[in-house]
Amino acid sequence: MAMVKLTEYADAKPEVKAVFDDIMTTRKTNWINNIWKALAAHPPTLRRIWEQVKDVMGPGGRIDPLTKELIYVAVSMTNNCEYCIKSHSAAARRKGMDDEIFGELAAIVALANQTNRLAISYQVEVDDAFEPRHD
Amino acid sequence: MAMVKLTEYADAKPEVKAVFDDIMTTRKTNWINNIWKALAAHPPTLRRIWEQVKDVMGPGGRIDPLTKELIYVAVSMTNNCEYCIKSHSAAARRKGMDDEIFGELAAIVALANQTNRLAISYQVEVDDAFEPRHD
Amino acid sequence: MAMVKLTEYADAKPEVKAVFDDIMTTRKTNWINNIWKALAAHPPTLRRIWEQVKDVMGPGGRIDPLTKELIYVAVSMTNNCEYCIKSHSAAARRKGMDDEIFGELAAIVALANQTNRLAISYQVEVDDAFEPRHD
Amino acid sequence: MAMVKLTEYADAKPEVKAVFDDIMTTRKTNWINNIWKALAAHPPTLRRIWEQVKDVMGPGGRIDPLTKELIYVAVSMTNNCEYCIKSHSAAARRKGMDDEIFGELAAIVALANQTNRLAISYQVEVDDAFEPRHD
Amino acid sequence: MAMVKLTEYADAKPEVKAVFDDIMTTRKTNWINNIWKALAAHPPTLRRIWEQVKDVMGPGGRIDPLTKELIYVAVSMTNNCEYCIKSHSAAARRKGMDDEIFGELAAIVALANQTNRLAISYQVEVDDAFEPRHD
Amino acid sequence: MAMVKLTEYADAKPEVKAVFDDIMTTRKTNWINNIWKALAAHPPTLRRIWEQVKDVMGPGGRIDPLTKELIYVAVSMTNNCEYCIKSHSAAARRKGMDDEIFGELAAIVALANQTNRLAISYQVEVDDAFEPRHD
Repeated sequence: MAMVKLTEYADAKPEVKAVFDDIMTTRKTNWINNIWKALAAHPPTLRRIWEQVKDVMGPGGRIDPLTKELIYVAVSMTNNCEYCIKSHSAAARRKGMDDEIFGELAAIVALANQTNRLAISYQVEVDDAFEPRHD
Repeated sequence: MAMVKLTEYADAKPEVKAVFDDIMTTRKTNWINNIWKALAAHPPTLRRIWEQVKDVMGPGGRIDPLTKELIYVAVSMTNNCEYCIKSHSAAARRKGMDDEIFGELAAIVALANQTNRLAISYQVEVDDAFEPRHD
Repeated sequence: MAMVKLTEYADAKPEVKAVFDDIMTTRKTNWINNIWKALAAHPPTLRRIWEQVKDVMGPGGRIDPLTKELIYVAVSMTNNCEYCIKSHSAAARRKGMDDEIFGELAAIVALANQTNRLAISYQVEVDDAFEPRHD
Repeated sequence: MAMVKLTEYADAKPEVKAVFDDIMTTRKTNWINNIWKALAAHPPTLRRIWEQVKDVMGPGGRIDPLTKELIYVAVSMTNNCEYCIKSHSAAARRKGMDDEIFGELAAIVALANQTNRLAISYQVEVDDAFEPRHD
Repeated sequence: MAMVKLTEYADAKPEVKAVFDDIMTTRKTNWINNIWKALAAHPPTLRRIWEQVKDVMGPGGRIDPLTKELIYVAVSMTNNCEYCIKSHSAAARRKGMDDEIFGELAAIVALANQTNRLAISYQVEVDDAFEPRHD
Repeated sequence: MAMVKLTEYADAKPEVKAVFDDIMTTRKTNWINNIWKALAAHPPTLRRIWEQVKDVMGPGGRIDPLTKELIYVAVSMTNNCEYCIKSHSAAARRKGMDDEIFGELAAIVALANQTNRLAISYQVEVDDAFEPRHD
């Protein structure tokens, strides 16, 4: 069971309703998913997190929307967050991910987790050629 | 200092030289970076890891080469692996990443790490709509 | 299902009963929670962990009992341990945490996880002013 | 070396200068630490992160400023972020942390990391008494 | 629910059947566990991962089979992967692990997670005597 | 630089000297490594951690001393703790680890980190056959 009571739209305070309305308008849906109903227990956090998600994951910038979601899912796989893997895989599917792309994504994430531990296990020093140059 | 002596090409056994040669041919370079010189201390692991990196990160598949590197760097940022962040950021730059894309990538990775912890902290249940359907 | 059979008080060996008794006396309760029933499968570990929890989380020291529990929950949120989040949130509530404080705690934990990844992603060098001084 | 060139105040664009000015005013200092100089490479992220840090870590709310910093350091210890441990330990010291409190904090963080792994290793089920109640 | 439909033997494509056959022959069993049925959704990953598991965890090398499984479980406990803890604990039991050895393993894993965080919290510098020597 | 001044034997308080003496006697050495000099800043933690390390990592129990160290190093590799990897690799070498065993250990740790992420990415359900039985 969630740590707080989920806030349904009908029971929400005006400041919460305003965020819920913006989520539904931005996403062109009439549905609010559980993470927002949970965050509604602390309205300033609800607003702050939604504003960020809208900014960072929304259109604009140089990284396309599907790639943004793949990166998000990759982090969630590494952190073992079931809610995040499932909710953002659903978002990625709406933007074009299919089973084959999911399979490739999981293979890259798994490989990076393997090679990360090899670099760490062997305490490999950064090659001079890989050090950033800022002249 | 690395946990093992790095193996230089001139001192390598034939089975190691063969992998080093394949790395340089595949990458069209005459240079071997430190992770491979470290893995050379255990030749079966050297070969196994190189074959995988070639398969998973090489051309082919549905995810384009730059996106593959961004996903790899995203995992490395989450795992705090300096060698991996720097070596794969260099690879990503060769494939088109610039400072702005790096900035967007870091922002997505950081946001996902934040929201992952919110979903975990509140123990949010997966919405039925996010559960995969396989009919 | 848990990895070992949980040991109930009635079935416990004397060395396990002695720890269970001390837990109930220290906590002024007549109830043993599952982690201790599981650790009872390896009595030396049961005793060692209980002695530590009593020492570190008990009264005494400079950090007050509620703050100790908030720190404990913060670590458990970062490590994604459901049992730990729920059991120590219950302990924190007995010491004064309410929904609002829980919301603030989660917001700090989530923010720290975000900014940690930014410092790591950008490989930020420690400012000289932040290096500890021991003269 | 950091992944991007650090932006010094004198070289900063107006949107970056505005955030740097707000940091110095809010903190009553005339100094900018490296994380902000790094984030300045991506001005929207600089502004977004600073606004959040100001909101979450600033005065207000129910958790006092020293406790907020202790929680922040606890997360950073768990995530192995040297920059974060050192910069926020410095902040905590300005708010009252001394060597003894640091020692107690580290002891709690270490214990929670130990017991988290025991709960996970034994796959302990959450006691019904620890499940949140929302009636 | 798993992210992909599990592939049963009867419905598998020839390239998947070939790997399933090799798993059953190698393990002298007539049963395929869920991780392979899930990986079958991406046949090249299924083959690559199985070949590695066979190489690394199979007989041969200097580390004995039970110790290999204990190391595997130790990593899975640290990463909080329920599937991995349970499937490789079952494998370890077939190779000689009993409840007492499981208890000792969990105690070592938990202790290492505690002391790892102390070394990180105190930012302890590596003693010169611990630096590897390669002359 | 470490977060606290390292305590040298000559400057230590009696309660710290007593632990230092026990470390040197137990290990048949006349040398104290840095983690203990750092923990000496908080004497109760110094004693508590040393007593545990002596109990869990010392002789006795069913897991042999070299295997204990390999498990410890495996956790430290997964957690990215340089101090812990280097100090416990030195301990493992004293108990029989050589370069080849180190290479096998790193390969197992890396593989487990890879397959852990696959099980997590695909959200694989635990097979009924892997669930522990306690009848």
